[in-house]
Parts: sequence; structure tokens; C-alpha cells
Amino acid sequence: MTLLADLLSTVFERRYRRPLGKPDTRPITELADALIVSEDETTGLKLAGNILAVFEDLDDEGKLGFFRHVARGMNIDPETLRTTLDAYEREPSKATYRMFMMAAEPPRQELIRRLNRVPGATRMLVRMRADLLRLGGKEPELAALDLDFRHLFMSWFNLGFLVLRPITWESPANILDRIIEYEAVHAIDSWDDLRRRLKPADRRCFAFFHPAMPDEPLIFVEVALTQGIPSSIQALLAEDRAPLMAEEADTAVFYSISNCQAGLASISFGNSLIKQVVSKLSKELAGQKTFVTLSPIPGLVKWLRETGQDWEPSDTARMRELAANYLVHAKTDGGLPYDPVARFHLGNGAIIHAVHAQADISDKGISQSGGTMVNYLYDLSNIAQNHAEFTNTKKVPATGEVLALAGTEAFALPKER
Amino acid sequence: MTLLADLLSTVFERRYRRPLGKPDTRPITELADALIVSEDETTGLKLAGNILAVFEDLDDEGKLGFFRHVARGMNIDPETLRTTLDAYEREPSKATYRMFMMAAEPPRQELIRRLNRVPGATRMLVRMRADLLRLGGKEPELAALDLDFRHLFMSWFNLGFLVLRPITWESPANILDRIIEYEAVHAIDSWDDLRRRLKPADRRCFAFFHPAMPDEPLIFVEVALTQGIPSSIQALLAEDRAPLMAEEADTAVFYSISNCQAGLASISFGNSLIKQVVSKLSKELAGQKTFVTLSPIPGLVKWLRETGQDWEPSDTARMRELAANYLVHAKTDGGLPYDPVARFHLGNGAIIHAVHAQADISDKGISQSGGTMVNYLYDLSNIAQNHAEFTNTKKVPATGEVLALAGTEAFALPKER
Amino acid sequence: MTLLADLLSTVFERRYRRPLGKPDTRPITELADALIVSEDETTGLKLAGNILAVFEDLDDEGKLGFFRHVARGMNIDPETLRTTLDAYEREPSKATYRMFMMAAEPPRQELIRRLNRVPGATRMLVRMRADLLRLGGKEPELAALDLDFRHLFMSWFNLGFLVLRPITWESPANILDRIIEYEAVHAIDSWDDLRRRLKPADRRCFAFFHPAMPDEPLIFVEVALTQGIPSSIQALLAEDRAPLMAEEADTAVFYSISNCQAGLASISFGNSLIKQVVSKLSKELAGQKTFVTLSPIPGLVKWLRETGQDWEPSDTARMRELAANYLVHAKTDGGLPYDPVARFHLGNGAIIHAVHAQADISDKGISQSGGTMVNYLYDLSNIAQNHAEFTNTKKVPATGEVLALAGTEAFALPKER
Amino acid sequence: MTLLADLLSTVFERRYRRPLGKPDTRPITELADALIVSEDETTGLKLAGNILAVFEDLDDEGKLGFFRHVARGMNIDPETLRTTLDAYEREPSKATYRMFMMAAEPPRQELIRRLNRVPGATRMLVRMRADLLRLGGKEPELAALDLDFRHLFMSWFNLGFLVLRPITWESPANILDRIIEYEAVHAIDSWDDLRRRLKPADRRCFAFFHPAMPDEPLIFVEVALTQGIPSSIQALLAEDRAPLMAEEADTAVFYSISNCQAGLASISFGNSLIKQVVSKLSKELAGQKTFVTLSPIPGLVKWLRETGQDWEPSDTARMRELAANYLVHAKTDGGLPYDPVARFHLGNGAIIHAVHAQADISDKGISQSGGTMVNYLYDLSNIAQNHAEFTNTKKVPATGEVLALAGTEAFALPKER
Repeated sequence: MTLLADLLSTVFERRYRRPLGKPDTRPITELADALIVSEDETTGLKLAGNILAVFEDLDDEGKLGFFRHVARGMNIDPETLRTTLDAYEREPSKATYRMFMMAAEPPRQELIRRLNRVPGATRMLVRMRADLLRLGGKEPELAALDLDFRHLFMSWFNLGFLVLRPITWESPANILDRIIEYEAVHAIDSWDDLRRRLKPADRRCFAFFHPAMPDEPLIFVEVALTQGIPSSIQALLAEDRAPLMAEEADTAVFYSISNCQAGLASISFGNSLIKQVVSKLSKELAGQKTFVTLSPIPGLVKWLRETGQDWEPSDTARMRELAANYLVHAKTDGGLPYDPVARFHLGNGAIIHAVHAQADISDKGISQSGGTMVNYLYDLSNIAQNHAEFTNTKKVPATGEVLALAGTEAFALPKER
Repeated sequence: MTLLADLLSTVFERRYRRPLGKPDTRPITELADALIVSEDETTGLKLAGNILAVFEDLDDEGKLGFFRHVARGMNIDPETLRTTLDAYEREPSKATYRMFMMAAEPPRQELIRRLNRVPGATRMLVRMRADLLRLGGKEPELAALDLDFRHLFMSWFNLGFLVLRPITWESPANILDRIIEYEAVHAIDSWDDLRRRLKPADRRCFAFFHPAMPDEPLIFVEVALTQGIPSSIQALLAEDRAPLMAEEADTAVFYSISNCQAGLASISFGNSLIKQVVSKLSKELAGQKTFVTLSPIPGLVKWLRETGQDWEPSDTARMRELAANYLVHAKTDGGLPYDPVARFHLGNGAIIHAVHAQADISDKGISQSGGTMVNYLYDLSNIAQNHAEFTNTKKVPATGEVLALAGTEAFALPKER
Repeated sequence: MTLLADLLSTVFERRYRRPLGKPDTRPITELADALIVSEDETTGLKLAGNILAVFEDLDDEGKLGFFRHVARGMNIDPETLRTTLDAYEREPSKATYRMFMMAAEPPRQELIRRLNRVPGATRMLVRMRADLLRLGGKEPELAALDLDFRHLFMSWFNLGFLVLRPITWESPANILDRIIEYEAVHAIDSWDDLRRRLKPADRRCFAFFHPAMPDEPLIFVEVALTQGIPSSIQALLAEDRAPLMAEEADTAVFYSISNCQAGLASISFGNSLIKQVVSKLSKELAGQKTFVTLSPIPGLVKWLRETGQDWEPSDTARMRELAANYLVHAKTDGGLPYDPVARFHLGNGAIIHAVHAQADISDKGISQSGGTMVNYLYDLSNIAQNHAEFTNTKKVPATGEVLALAGTEAFALPKER
Repeated sequence: MTLLADLLSTVFERRYRRPLGKPDTRPITELADALIVSEDETTGLKLAGNILAVFEDLDDEGKLGFFRHVARGMNIDPETLRTTLDAYEREPSKATYRMFMMAAEPPRQELIRRLNRVPGATRMLVRMRADLLRLGGKEPELAALDLDFRHLFMSWFNLGFLVLRPITWESPANILDRIIEYEAVHAIDSWDDLRRRLKPADRRCFAFFHPAMPDEPLIFVEVALTQGIPSSIQALLAEDRAPLMAEEADTAVFYSISNCQAGLASISFGNSLIKQVVSKLSKELAGQKTFVTLSPIPGLVKWLRETGQDWEPSDTARMRELAANYLVHAKTDGGLPYDPVARFHLGNGAIIHAVHAQADISDKGISQSGGTMVNYLYDLSNIAQNHAEFTNTKKVPATGEVLALAGTEAFALPKER
């Protein structure tokens, strides 16, 4: 085999394979205890492979048992930590710092790192954390274990390790399968639907991948190249629309962003993804001048209900006012926008460019947002400043038109609330 | 461009690029202080890129200044740590554990992670640690900073993230350049010499790579396929030897292992590398039955001098006895083999198979080892057990022949020592 | 961009692109006349690009006009040929042979070669021939032109230039689109159906590709790995079957072979494809001992009708006799098997291993073959001898069981025929 | 193995492998006779593989014997050709044309095509033709056989099948080995020299490859990016020069073009290579405005001798006049430039931009060209017109300065010639 092929096979062939041969029949908790004290790499690898295989086959009760064992049995030891901290403070040296470091980190973090030595283990660990989040509920010990997972994942899934890859109609079908499965905003209802979102010259899709999980997208964004800023998702995705040549477009519309991995919850990739895609498209397509989203306003109807407002999707003037008012004025207790999608884009440094009524007339669009949608505008030259101002002042940045629509203050919440 | 090419370019194009545009002229220490408190990703990325660029241009004094600033200014705060630990112990919850975690890790670790968000930063950070090790000397604070670097690198360069790639005569010349540069055991004196070690059908070379540094080998091993176990490195590498067909060989000889990255010191890859290569060759070449090294005995002459022995390289019988005695009986204070290469291979679970005189008659071979070399044998079916016994008993495992040569005890050290 | 990506993009990026800039508005026949006399490469390339673009937009009448122009106007000139042949015979020299060669080949072959200089042109020319075959009908001049196309294609699509590639669920979706479209034996009715044929561990698919058309399969074969030889296509493709591990299988079943390119008609790839796949699977899967087809008998019902036989699909014993008799005894005027699939496999050196009733109970299976199917056995150690004997004797090779079922002679054709 | 790796291995793994198993011991001529009548693909492939293996081991006498056998025994049969031509003329039909085609092409062409079915055979056939050219001498029959090889190679190595690949310091060492070997203009004397020509940001190299010979460059060109047009090859290649950033350059200098395959003699790639590289660099580097060569004038000294001129390399004014006069006025009997390099570039549509003295002061430069060199300018917007005018008028196009230097007519040849 040539080097080229070999190189690729080593980079991409990171499937986890269940260990062959006679399985280790000890309980998983015992295997974990053995792994954490193991000093021999070969033995350690074997134990780790076995733990991953056994875990996969456990039912939820068994998984919970494993999590609790690890959370409790491999926690920090406060006394040792205090002792080593004192020693380090008394005499800061390489030796005292090393002892302190070991005591300051719970052994379960080392356990997770050791599990990760197995080829292909990373995706198993991501799934393991998804199980933990699903099952952990309100147990404080499991919440702490989850923080350990998250701490390691933030290091492993560091932005510098991620790769941005285009998803096209020439992508492997197993990856496209994932795109269909993970699309969380505007469901993809068939391979024909998917083809319409990927194949035309005026459509793009990009995803972040991690080298250790090369066929598992972490997050992806769907983009439409358009002339002008669109005001309706149905028009944007119409089956019978005539595609543009890429060069004819002047605007790139981010119309759907979906996280793919439950096990990577609260590790945020969306901001970077959007900015890298903006930067990439700016370079590739000279005519591309405007970068906007066409976003849902998922909290609108809930908030209208809570504030006792009346609304009627077909009353487009009123709906735009309601939406603008909600986006600009409705806030959480912390003073941030009440709408989660708004929080995300404004936190990234975008501004509210326009609101539209009758923009998403799907069942979901009507029931969540009364049919409204919003464009958030990403202007690279202002993003840092927008972000800074928004962080400092918590004032929602928007165009004059939107601010005018929004009025000067939030609709009052109903008295009885 | 097709997806395929695009995919590859994103996976492999991880060169660090100096930031374009007007440089940030603040001192590097100020930039670091700004980065550690930065909340905006875009700003943070820009700061990180600037720090890496500025650092690269600093002289040693400037680098030391940066290291000291980070080591001191971004250390743990014992008081906060004690407070959060108390709070967590009092009431273990997600919130108290999160506060504890933040206090238990020095902020400089987060600084390093933030620097690593820049594309291509990983290799810059590895070089930064190489500088730290070179300059840090005996300053306890810098030693602690180094432990932080090492802690993160052990997580990032986790075995499960590494890829084993063959190095062949079809490898890119820039990578081969590195092989020539890093070969630390038997120097490669020209491209012709390199070609002789890579191109013949009975030669192999393998290296570990990390996806974020795809053209920087981390460690590599050179292998000769032979009939029988060789006893001379000069014979093994003779220019005029007749290569075997791979199928004719029954033995794979690991005759050189070299670490490549000073910045990854004390993060050990050699054991895994050997075992993965043994496993790979076993699968590929059915006839491959024996896996041995042909290794130097770098500490022999020094030890002979220290123990006041006489030796004469051409007295082959005597040299073999001296070498066997040294390998089997000379120990460190901790009871481990005195010879570092022996420590490495025996610690991996290999045994001493044979010792040879007149086996390396190069200047270096004569001056370090009196011309002797040794074969360590890797027998996969016994490795775990060998390792366990060696760890427990510290008894050096060797064939009967070697043990007989070694005699029953170490040569006495001279009195006056 | 790295070399690796660049290399791939040049190898795989062979899309034909319509020429940019002002189109050449001369009629296509004039462009062709200009191309054949063009001496300048740049001009020639431009002309060729224009011809391909203009041709694509022609309606059938226009295409026919172009074909007729080329067939007539760029034919051999018998007088020149006779003169140069005489000269060569009189004095065979490099010069006289060169003159003869030029006269012996019609200029339209050179025209096709010149068209092929345009990047991506090969697939356009394959489509052009498909048009020619579709439109050419019985015009002798166009049949001659088709022979010229075929002559060149046999040289360009020479076996040594083709590459065998596995088609898997990880293949690019645009290639899988083609597989769905081209499957000619057992239609693939959805992407779920396709996934069932590609993803399970006991399914394989292979196709031949040409480097100049890297996303256009030329021919593909679908393979099922099984325990024992199957007797029903519906069982083989059942949605709810339990897949085997590849190692559990002892038999590879070729259950569908489809040619993809109408423009490559009468250039045969099937024989090589099957043999390369047999050889590949033999190497990969040690347990793979038997290679058979599960094939339709597409001419059976037609022949039963012609010979006035009665048949009833549910009468399995009778159906097997009818099928065996037909396969073994029904012959064309040339003495070859009447059944085209039988001609193909027996011509490749396979033998008839078994016939089955109720084996394909789809509408198509019942209407074409009365539900019967047949296994052709490929035994690599006997293929060459089988082929030689079959070529010499035209005797259909079959197992004793099939021969016994077949009886000693063909059913008589009805008198009136 | 993943699809990606598999795909690559099939595309690139085109090494010819000697057939395994018992060799066919018949003489090669007998094997060839068997192959040309073979009807079975498997048998044919085996015969072809054997012929290639046997041929490789023949001495020159044996190779000549094979060539003569094929040239004579597989020639056209004039009588059959006349008969089939008559039949076709009488009644042009598919059948008569097919018979004619078969008779009009010597069977040895089919022999070569059948040899080419073996994987990796293409490079063997290219080498075979190199042997034929080397050994064939003046035998008319072998010259005719060579025309057959050439005819097939022109079809197989059709421009549309070639791929342009950059050669960089990241290219595989085995390909770089070839570049060192094949460089025919300014010898590369070491790997360090090669590195200086490939690695700096202002150096480029491109080669044409054929997919069936992916590690054998067909032709390559070395390019220097410069500010302004250079007048000295030694300055251009100086070891201690300071490289430019690619963006700083305004000129691309083609300073060396080398054909690599003796077996592809008189199949011209150079014109296309230059134009594709010009087009590629124009796209990549916006600042690139001028494309010139820095070329030797290899026939100058010979011609000065023949015309009885005196010359002295250090007399730069005089040398420039001599060079200009030679390039502009010295012609072959056919009226084309006497200098072969001039013929090539002017035939491509370039013009003479400037002549330089003391421009190549290497031994070769002084002895062939008296130290002079010339810039040919490729201006894409004028190339087609230049080519057409040059073809029609045979007038050498040059700048006014060069024409002024050249004077109005060629130096007279000495009387006695």
C-alpha cells in the first residue's frame, strides 16, 4: 500500500473495536479500580478496552452504578489536598507542586484519560457523558463527575484541534445520515430534501469535526447564497426554486445551526463555526458582502402567552411589532435576552437586522413563533465591538427600523404573574 | 475543489500563520494578562495569535521574563482554594465543585489552552515548553509551570489521539528531513544513507504523529527484517548488503528509537510505539516470528571506569561477560537497571536475549560501550507477565546464556568511591 | 494548500467546464472542420471546448447533423490509402509507413482524440457516443463512426487503466445516486434499501472507475456474504434478516451486475470485474471458499412461450426442470446459450451449479423467469479450462444434478415457428 | 480500511508486479504469438504478464529479436487490406467497415494494447519503447513499429488524461529522486540544491503525471518568482540569496524544462505544461504579471564556429549582438529557427524579450552559449496570434531592442561551407 493511503487510514481509521478474545468477566467497577492503579501500559490498555465494551452493554441501572462508583470512589481527598497544599505553600518546589497537583485533581479524571488511550475511545466517552447527563439528574456527585468530563472535553475539543469541513452531496453517505438525524431546526424529511440543501450551486453546509471522531460531525450550519436578505424560510427552501450561480449571490444566509453530540453539551462551538464560515466564504466568493441568519424566535409564543398578549399570525404588522418588542426588551433575570437564539447570536457580536412575519408558516413555526423569524447580521468589522458593548451594557443592538418597531419598553407582564 | 481535497487540506493544513495586519504592540506579559480575562472568542483568538508571534521573536531573556510572569502571576491562590474546598466539603454540589475546580487549577493552564485555540498553535506550544526546559534551570516556579505544560500535553498527546504512520522512501521530503535531523542513535549521514534505511524491501520505519502536528514526527523506530538475530550494527547497515524479500525474513530488529520533540520530554511514547509496530508487523508478515532490538549499552564504559575494571574491545569473550554483568547486576539506588536503555526495554516487558562484542565498532560504539551491543527480546505472549515480575521483583530477566555470562553478582565498585 | 490536497484535486477534479467568455458562434460542423486542421494547441483546445459545449445544447436533429457531417466529411480517402499503401509496399520505410498510417485511419478518430484534450472531456465523449447509438439507427455511415468511437474507447478504457473501488455506505452520495439509478437487475427502491445493501458487515459492492471519470462508475457488482449457497433473492435481501459477521461467511454471492454507461456499449468489463472481486475477497476473507452468482434467467418465459410449454411458478419441481433444460439445451443459431446471462457467465468460465424455483417472486421475476433463478459457480482453479472447453465444444458445463434435471435434449420448438 | 484509503490505494497503486508462480518457459516470441490470438481474458492477462516479465530480463540482443519478430510477424497484410477496402468502398456498411478497420491496423498495435491490460503495464511499455528507440537504429521495420507505439501513446497520453501536480519539498522522496535524475538543463547536484529549488516561498515546480504512472513525472518545469526579469542563472540560483514572499514577486521565470521519459520521445507536453502553469500561477498569485523564461541558447557556439565568427564571453555588448543575430536570423533549411529551444518557445507563441551576456557562466553555459541566455516572454493575450503569425510568416517575433541588436540579416556562413 502506498504511504498516502496508509497515512489516511491511520488518520481516519479511528473506529473503536471491541476487544477480541476472552472477555474479562470482573464487574466494571472492579475493572475501573484496577485501571486507575495499573502501572503497565499493555495491561492498562486491555482494561480500558474491556471497560468500554462492558459499559456499552450495561442497562441504565448498570451505567448509573458505574457512574456512582467512579464519582464517589475516585473523588478528591480533601485531607491529602490540604496537606499537599500546605507543603507547597511552605516550600514551593517541583516536588511539592507535583504532589499538590496530584491531590488537586480527582483520580476519575485520570481514569477518563486512561480510557481514552484505546483507539476510537473518544467517541465512546462522548456517548458515556451523554448517558451521564441523561441519567445523572440531580445527584450532586454525578453533576461533579460531569464537570470532570466537561473539563477534559474542553481541553480535547479545543478549537485548535477541530477541523472545519464542507458537507456536500459528495460527502460520505454515513455522514449525511448523521446530518439528517441531527438537523434540529428545519427537519430534513428525505434524501431528496437533503440533496436540495447540498447539491445546488447556491447552497453550502459546513461542520466541525474532531480528528478522533472523523465521521461524527460536532455541529453544522446550513447556508443559502442569495440575492438580498430573505424573509421566508419556505421560499428559501422551496422545491421548485431556480438555483443561482454562486457568483450571482451577494448574501450568505445561515438558516440552520445544529449541535450533534449530546455528550458535548455546554461546550460551545457555534460562535467559532459561524465566524470561520464567514471568513471562508468571504475568501472564496468575492461578491459575498452580507452575512445574516434567518433564525427562529423560539420563545416568542411562550412569552406572548405569559405576558397575556393577543396575536394572530396573519396580522403581519402586529406580529413584527410583537417580535421586535420581545427580542429587544424581554430579558432574563440576569438581564440577558429572554430568547435563547437571540442570546447566542447577540453574544457572538451579531445585531438584529430585521424581523419578518409569515416567515415560517410550518406547524412548528406557527406554534413557537407565530410565523415570525429574524435576521441576525454578522458584520465582521463590527463584531468585536458589538460583543464588547453588549457584554458591558446588555443593550440589544438592532437596526433603527427594528428599534422603532420594538417601542421603548417591554410589554408589561400580566399583573397576576 | 472536491470534498476529498478539501477534507485533506483541513485535516493537514495546520500550519501556524503569524497574524496579518497591524501587530499588537503591548508587551507579551500584558497580552497574556488580557487573554486570561478575555471573554470574547474573537478577541481571545487575536490575543493568542499575537502572543505566539511575539514569543517566537523574543530572545532568551524575554522568554524567561514571560515564563516567570505566567508562573507567578497565574498560579493557584491557596486561600481561595482552601475556601472553595471547605465549601465543597460542607455541601458537595455542582456549584461548589465548580468553584473548587476553578480554584484548584492554576490559571496558567487555562492560558495554555487558550493559546492552543489558534490553528497550528500546538507545535508552537511544544516548542515553548522546549524553551522552558532549556531556560528554566532550577527555578522552582518554572519547574511548576513545566508540570502544568506536561499535565496538558499528557492529555492532548494521549495515546488514543496519536497515529502510527510508516515512514518510507515515498514519504514527503520535509518529513524525511526531520528523520535525518532527529536520529539520535546511529546518525544518518546523507540522503543516500537514509535511502538505504527506507527503500529496501527488508527495511521499515514507523513514527507516531499527532493530528495537530501532521508533519512533525514525535518518535520513530527503524526496523530491519532479517534472517536470525543480528549481532553487529555495521553488518546490519552495510552499504553493499543484499536485501531480503520481506517474506524471507523471520526476525524484525528494532535497531534505533529516537524521540523527536524536546518539548515533549518525560511524556513517554516508546513503549506503545514498539508494541504497535510489533502488532502491525505480525499481521502484515506472516513469517515474522521474532521481535528483538539491537541496542547500544550506553552506560557500560562509564560504569567500567567507575568500577575500575579493565577492558579491551577486541577481547570479545571478556567484553560479553562485562556487558552481561553490567546489564544484569548494575543498579541505581532505586534498584532499577543502571543502564537507561535497559531500564526502558525491561520496563516495557522485554528480556535480555543476548549480548555481543565487536557489535558496534564505530567511534561512538567503542567509546560508550566498548563495542558491545545487546538484543532485548519482545515476546508479546510474555510481555505483560515479564513487566509485572520486573516491576515487583526488580530482577533483570535474561536468557540462561546471558545469566551465565553475567555471573552471580555485580563487580564491586572501587573502594574509594 | 498542501501537496496532498493539491494532488488529489488534480487527480479527481476532472469536471468538464463549459468555456467561459464569448462563445464561438460558428455552426458546430464548421468548428469541427476548424479543429481537425488546427495546428495550434491553444486554438485547438478552445475549439474543442466550444464543440463540446455546443453539442450538449443541440437537439437530436442537430446532433444527428453533426454526426453525419463527421462521418462523411472525415472518412478515409480510399485513393490516398491505396497510393500510400503501394508506396509503403514498394519501399517500407519510416516515411512511407507514416504516410500510410495517416491514410489508413479516418480523420474523425483524430477529431475525437482532439476533443478529448479538454479537461473532463472523456465523459462528454462517452455521452456523445450514447447519443450516437440512440440516434444512429441503421445508417451505415453512423455505424462506422460508432466503430471509430468504440475503437478509441477500447484503447482508453483498457483494463490496465481501470481502478476497482469498493462502494460502501461511506461512499460519496453523488456516486450512490448513480448506483441507485443504474441498478438494472433488482431495482433499489430507496436510500434505505441501498443502505441495507451496503452497510451490513456481510454486504459488499465493487465498481470499476476510470481516472478521467472518477465519479462515474462504469460497472458494478453487488455481493452478499452468506453461509451456504442461497436459493432466493427475496430471502437474501430481506429487510429483517440478521447480518453475519464477515468471518462467519463461507460463500460470496454475486447477485447483481449492472453496466452503467450506455456510451460504453459492447466494451466488456463484467468478466474482469467478477474475477478481480473474487481475487480481492479471497485475499481479504480467509474463510471465503465458494463464489457463486444468484442470477436471473431472463429469457426463460419467452422461450417457454415460443416452444409452447406450459408452466406454473408454484410447481417447483417442474420449474426447475424447465429452467435446467432451457439453460443447458436452448441455443442460438451460433450454438451459444440462448439465455444472455448464461452466455456471459459460461463465457467467463463459470459453470451452472444449481437452479431454483420460487427464487425470485417479484413481478419481474415471475414474468421473466417464472420465479426461477440460477447459481453460476466461479471456481478460480477451473475457470481457464472451463472457458477453453466451452469455447471449443459449446457444451454447457453444469453439475450432475442440473444435467439430470435438464434431460438429454431441448424441448422441441413448436412446428409453426 | 476506510473507503478513502481504499480509493487512493486503487488509484495510485499501479505498480507492475512480476507474475507469481511457475513462469511460462516458452520463448517470448511464442508468448507474443499466443497472446495475439488469445480469446480468453484470463489466459491473455497471464500471457501479457509473462511477456512483460520475460522482456525485462532479456539482453539487448533478445529485445531486438522480440522487436523484429513483432514488427515483421504482426504487420499489416496489404492484400487483405486492399480486399476489405474494396469491399467497403463497394458497399459501405458496419460489417465492411469493421473488416476494413481490422485490416488497416497492424496486429502489433493490438498486441501492445493487450500487454497494457496488466496492472502497471503502462510504464513497462514506455520503457519498452525507450529500448526500441535505443536499439532500433535505422531498421525501417523497427521504425514502423515505433510509429505504432507512438500512435498508441499519443492516444493514451492525451492531454485530457494528464494531471498537473506541483512538486514541492513535501513531495515523496522517490519522486524527488526522479527530479534530480531527469533535470537536463541546470543539473541538481545534491539534495541541498534540490531543497533550495523547492522549499523557498518564491520557488515553484510543476510536473505532468499520467494516472497509470503516478510516481513517474513525464515532464517538469522549474519556476522562480522574482521582482523584474532576471538576466543571470547564477544569480537566480545563488545559495545565499534572500527569498521573496510570493506576494512580493511580479514575474514568474521558467528557468528549466526537462522531459523525463525517453519512451515518450516526440510526444510533446512542454507547450501545454507552460500554459497550464501560467494559467495556474495567474490565478493563485494576483501580483504575477509577467511570465518569461530564462533559457539557454544551446546552438550558439556551434553556429558561431560554423559561421567563422570570433567571440569572447566577457565582451558583453558583442555577445548580445551575436546571440540576437543568431536567434533572429539563423534558420534551418525549413526556414525555422536554427536554435532548438527557440523553435520550441516561438512555436508555442512566445516572443524573444531580451538577450543577456555573462548570464550562464558555468562550464556548460560558456561552452555552449558563450555565457549568453535569453528570455522568451509568454503573454497569454497574444500567444495565439503570435503563434499564428509565426507559423505563417516564420518571422521571429522579438522586442525592438532585440531586433535592433540582431541587425538586418544573418552573419554570412563562411564560403567554404
